[in-house]
Amino acid sequence: MPPPPLTPVADAQARLLAQAGSVSALESLPLERCLGRILAADQHAAVDVPAYDNSAVDGYALRVADLSAVGTSVPVSQVIAAGHPGGALESGTAARIFTGAPIPAGADAVVMQEDTSAQDGHVRVLELPLRGQHIRLRGHDIAAGQQVLARGRRLLAQDLGLLASLGLAEIPVFKPLTVAVLTTGDEVVSPGQRLAPGQLHDSNSYTLQGLLQGLGMRVLRLGIIADDPTLTRQMLREAAAQADCVITTGGVSVGAADHVRAAVEELGVLDLWQLAIKPGKPFSFGHIGKTPFFGVPGNPVAVFVTWLVLVRSYLLKLQGACEVQLPLQTVRAGFTAESGSRQEYQRVRLQYQQGELPLARPFTDQGSSLLSSLSWADGLVVIPRGVAVREGEPVDYIPFRGAL
Amino acid sequence: MPPPPLTPVADAQARLLAQAGSVSALESLPLERCLGRILAADQHAAVDVPAYDNSAVDGYALRVADLSAVGTSVPVSQVIAAGHPGGALESGTAARIFTGAPIPAGADAVVMQEDTSAQDGHVRVLELPLRGQHIRLRGHDIAAGQQVLARGRRLLAQDLGLLASLGLAEIPVFKPLTVAVLTTGDEVVSPGQRLAPGQLHDSNSYTLQGLLQGLGMRVLRLGIIADDPTLTRQMLREAAAQADCVITTGGVSVGAADHVRAAVEELGVLDLWQLAIKPGKPFSFGHIGKTPFFGVPGNPVAVFVTWLVLVRSYLLKLQGACEVQLPLQTVRAGFTAESGSRQEYQRVRLQYQQGELPLARPFTDQGSSLLSSLSWADGLVVIPRGVAVREGEPVDYIPFRGAL
Repeated sequence: MPPPPLTPVADAQARLLAQAGSVSALESLPLERCLGRILAADQHAAVDVPAYDNSAVDGYALRVADLSAVGTSVPVSQVIAAGHPGGALESGTAARIFTGAPIPAGADAVVMQEDTSAQDGHVRVLELPLRGQHIRLRGHDIAAGQQVLARGRRLLAQDLGLLASLGLAEIPVFKPLTVAVLTTGDEVVSPGQRLAPGQLHDSNSYTLQGLLQGLGMRVLRLGIIADDPTLTRQMLREAAAQADCVITTGGVSVGAADHVRAAVEELGVLDLWQLAIKPGKPFSFGHIGKTPFFGVPGNPVAVFVTWLVLVRSYLLKLQGACEVQLPLQTVRAGFTAESGSRQEYQRVRLQYQQGELPLARPFTDQGSSLLSSLSWADGLVVIPRGVAVREGEPVDYIPFRGAL
Repeated sequence: MPPPPLTPVADAQARLLAQAGSVSALESLPLERCLGRILAADQHAAVDVPAYDNSAVDGYALRVADLSAVGTSVPVSQVIAAGHPGGALESGTAARIFTGAPIPAGADAVVMQEDTSAQDGHVRVLELPLRGQHIRLRGHDIAAGQQVLARGRRLLAQDLGLLASLGLAEIPVFKPLTVAVLTTGDEVVSPGQRLAPGQLHDSNSYTLQGLLQGLGMRVLRLGIIADDPTLTRQMLREAAAQADCVITTGGVSVGAADHVRAAVEELGVLDLWQLAIKPGKPFSFGHIGKTPFFGVPGNPVAVFVTWLVLVRSYLLKLQGACEVQLPLQTVRAGFTAESGSRQEYQRVRLQYQQGELPLARPFTDQGSSLLSSLSWADGLVVIPRGVAVREGEPVDYIPFRGAL
């Protein structure tokens, strides 16, 4: 009997996203605590930004019609600094004005101070202005009523600035998801403990911890489940009661010690997938009661890759985010590879050359246990299944870090 | 008199980095609190990872020499699960073994269960194994004594996993920098307050807040300094006493209300630069006492760009980080542009097409007050000075977001 066909990655992604609801609990927070949070309501400008016509430069505000020719000199009738509105401009005069200061009524242009000479309370205009020159009009950046950010936006630093510029001190954001993380296996012990023969230290829960925190989510560390059916059932039930999502690593392969599978099937529903992905073939998704459950394979690199490719977008959607796709770039393969029946994710470093596609050099050993290769790498190259990549060809790339 | 030549961006970057010391206060933290922190000491493996030879698959451990031909059947003498080391392998027998379980002494290969048939306590081997097959050797991932991460590493999720796999529960990291942020200007009021005529809401301190938090730094919000020399001096002195670095926005132009400049010059030293950068030409760097000081221009986009291009790498170095450069990519210009005498940073969105360089489409208005353009954008395209970029040409690009 031939093995059942593997599920393509794109199909699994689509099926997962289709099942992702949205946890809707809100809170109102001061702006300075909102970095990385998901906006819970569309934000509209209640005011014009800027709220008044103002000068874009240091110079002189005047009326273009008052200047007959280059070299015309007019008296300076007032000084207007930012935050200190002046009076209406007297006809035939100029107002000394500084960047950001309100344009006085009656003025229709600003001449930069570099284009003037000042003497004895007069200013000589050395370059004739155009009407509207160096004036930032009220509402030019944002008009009152305009939507500035949409519900579901994952807030960047500049978004906080934008919302502040509208006068908002507090905004509604979704409460962070709480995600329970469990590691399975009699052989696994926590860092800080000595290893007995045949044991290894839990690393997967720490990788997941960091990945979840990177999305602003809370992590409920529930430790290590030994290979015991009763204990497994009990811990999974508790996890599901306390968290918005449960993730276990290991323990859903075809091995004999697969108590997680049995427990989830008893407490809810479970789909076991054989994915066309390398690393990470055995992958499971289901629900414990109503709480979504992910069973990711135990190999450290498979945890990372399946999280990135499958779990991340699901959780972002559950958290209320609009943009849930991975950022992708194009790079040049610095290697030759043939992917076979599974889509492969290779750990690479980029060699950057100005004006050219960066060259992606692979880690020497792409084994799925090699966590060190993920620390070495700048990102992952994607090789679709059944594709032979030749050196120098463009390939998709997932960058780990951005500038913010 | 011609204006003094503008300082090239690369020169300013180099001069700043050359002056960046390193704040060296350490703390020891549990791994789960170390995401984004900077590692304060090289980390070496105290143990081999894995700590013992183990099986990469579910199957049977045996001795290759015991198999004469395909189809040979041998008795199953023991079962070895992960975490439960078995005894030495009896000659002429196989051990049932599961993924991650220790290889018994005397065995030299593992046959996958898919390549066997089991019956009556015996296993028939349907494919002859090679020596060492499906065995993950002790120390294969990391050998004891090997350096796994270097001092100065900004810790990613996978680094936490890697350190956990070595058994480390706590690690030394640098204490986060405290950066004081002040906004200057009589016209500026805090969000949440009503605007009087000629006023605007502070946005810059919120943008900076988010940018600093994104690097894991602490922000000391010191509010808004009115245009008053005594108050300015007093607030800057206090800021420098409490923080590792002081950043002000606005108030260092050639305008009359430039009390920040006077105060820093009185309390320390200040270099005023006219940078060949757009936006962000007027930029200052100095020290208040021994505390580094940045005076960035008041325009919201200039704050963001000069922070990214100049302040970010300085602060990362001050924080002890090794990698301080911005991540750069290559994209295709979806526009025509000529930069003139300054290096330009254009806000763009990427249009992604598989196997091609993404196309960077610019925001329609590249004015330096338009904070909304930064929320719209995926990143910034860099146009070196004196360069004419034609549509379709490759250009450097700074991505805002990565996958982690």
